[in-house]
Amino acid sequence: MVWASEFSDLFLLALLAGSRQSARSMPVLVAGSIALDDVKTPLEEHRNLLGGSASYGCVAASFYGPVNLVGIVGEDFPKEHLDLFKQRNVDLAGLQVVPGKTCRWSGEYMWDLHICETRSIALNVFEHFTPVLTEAYKETPVVLLGNISPDLQHHILDQVRLPRFVIADTMDLWIDIARPRLLELLARIHMLSLNDSEARQLTGETSLIKAARRLQDLGPQFIAIKKGEHGCLLFGEEGQFFSCPAYPLEDIHDPTGAGDAFAGGLAGYLAKDGDEVNFAGLRRAVVHGSVLASYNVEAFSLEKLRTVTWAQILDRFDTFRCLSQFDG
Amino acid sequence: MVWASEFSDLFLLALLAGSRQSARSMPVLVAGSIALDDVKTPLEEHRNLLGGSASYGCVAASFYGPVNLVGIVGEDFPKEHLDLFKQRNVDLAGLQVVPGKTCRWSGEYMWDLHICETRSIALNVFEHFTPVLTEAYKETPVVLLGNISPDLQHHILDQVRLPRFVIADTMDLWIDIARPRLLELLARIHMLSLNDSEARQLTGETSLIKAARRLQDLGPQFIAIKKGEHGCLLFGEEGQFFSCPAYPLEDIHDPTGAGDAFAGGLAGYLAKDGDEVNFAGLRRAVVHGSVLASYNVEAFSLEKLRTVTWAQILDRFDTFRCLSQFDG
Repeated sequence: MVWASEFSDLFLLALLAGSRQSARSMPVLVAGSIALDDVKTPLEEHRNLLGGSASYGCVAASFYGPVNLVGIVGEDFPKEHLDLFKQRNVDLAGLQVVPGKTCRWSGEYMWDLHICETRSIALNVFEHFTPVLTEAYKETPVVLLGNISPDLQHHILDQVRLPRFVIADTMDLWIDIARPRLLELLARIHMLSLNDSEARQLTGETSLIKAARRLQDLGPQFIAIKKGEHGCLLFGEEGQFFSCPAYPLEDIHDPTGAGDAFAGGLAGYLAKDGDEVNFAGLRRAVVHGSVLASYNVEAFSLEKLRTVTWAQILDRFDTFRCLSQFDG
Repeated sequence: MVWASEFSDLFLLALLAGSRQSARSMPVLVAGSIALDDVKTPLEEHRNLLGGSASYGCVAASFYGPVNLVGIVGEDFPKEHLDLFKQRNVDLAGLQVVPGKTCRWSGEYMWDLHICETRSIALNVFEHFTPVLTEAYKETPVVLLGNISPDLQHHILDQVRLPRFVIADTMDLWIDIARPRLLELLARIHMLSLNDSEARQLTGETSLIKAARRLQDLGPQFIAIKKGEHGCLLFGEEGQFFSCPAYPLEDIHDPTGAGDAFAGGLAGYLAKDGDEVNFAGLRRAVVHGSVLASYNVEAFSLEKLRTVTWAQILDRFDTFRCLSQFDG
């Protein structure tokens, strides 16, 4: 009885603490940008927000298990943002804090929040970022190469020893200015995550079905095509296909980082799910990524992911099932 | 044994014949246009095709049970098209064949098949169509008011006695030129089926979630918003929500009639499903509608629905489940 009671207390404590790191969770390496953002939507404008693909990715992944962060910030980087990473138990051995200014991005969303115009970008300390991974980081089994230049993605992947699963994200900029290096990267990764417009841009195919097949021919076994309010398509081997709905949000406050939170949740779930990646697990991983992305857009920056609980994640996962399932 | 053998033979015959009309199937009244279409896509052009909302709707619904067709054609209407309706066991008591020419429509699809430009339209005999329903038709429990003018939809609905479930489809033209009558119709129907762009046009809301709520406030308990390659959203009472994926087709040959086939399959399934309409049944009905629509776009006109089998419909229904389901 005493043991049972203690067990029960531990279980409750784990639930309250987020219950996210099961004994089996493998670590995830999350590499990407860390930035200070100014974001304007038709209704609101906020400055000096925590942003960048690695920030969203590592916080999202942290709900599932240990995260090794690879990134760089300047001496101006606010302590409160470092504190958030620490609260989320993110390993910061790979975070360089160097003299100079943190990367800055400023963007404005148009009326329907689908189109974002970059007003300015200043790479600052990020410009000459050439990370050297620690021995522990080199052994990370699941790797998320967040949206950064393909050169930098290659540089990081070169240092990881026999990763079990590598996911890369990208964006229109790299398709425009670094296509050859991006195509080389595709041959080295297991999964590519990108937007529908980027899939069309990269392949020249109008049909997303054809675009995914073309991308698979270039290397990755799995392609996740993000369609924003229309959900996400997952393509696997031999015609395997999964269509994940979007969570029906009446109000989206800030779409920034949705794709990064998606990739982080997906990578985190895969690392927690176990040794073997199979399509059933990838379906669940895509739903978890969608859950994190749907929470993320409910507030600016990481304000929602900062407070969301493991119970809320599981609850929304169940909601995703409710809204997409039907009986025979 | 003899009886069992005969039963077995009958069962096999029923399967071979399409096994579509269970003893419990209620009839569906399908009202709409019947037209001869000229359709041009970037790859093909065909003339004098069977078209019109009622043609697609009644053939799609006919896979599930008896259909009472309400429509009008001229004396030029080809016998082969009448034969198709007869082959599908469609009741033609409500089909007027009158002196004059059948309604004609000509349209051209742009490169990605999303945008269709109407080249010409000639209502011909349809212009003064004021159908009078037979006594049997007046008792039809499930009514599909296909895409025709709201005035005509009212005129038909006025004659049906206590219908159990009324579905209406519409289009941008009626939202433009007959908005007041369309809004009046909404108060008289159980379900509205329309495109995403039409939902936004009719409500002025960008968010489809908000648009659906606005439409429900105007009358229908259920709203189906068709999103083409992104599937379909179904909204019910008290926040009930279902997201139906799109079937992943590599090649769409002719999108004409997809929405009409969707509504026909949906109405047909509901009539077959039983007396009480509930949200679980509506989910399945939306999937059946999506199955019929996905087959329909695989060929011009009704060429695919002419040959598709009940087994193929059930097979694709199962595929829809495979491509949208995930475990916990």
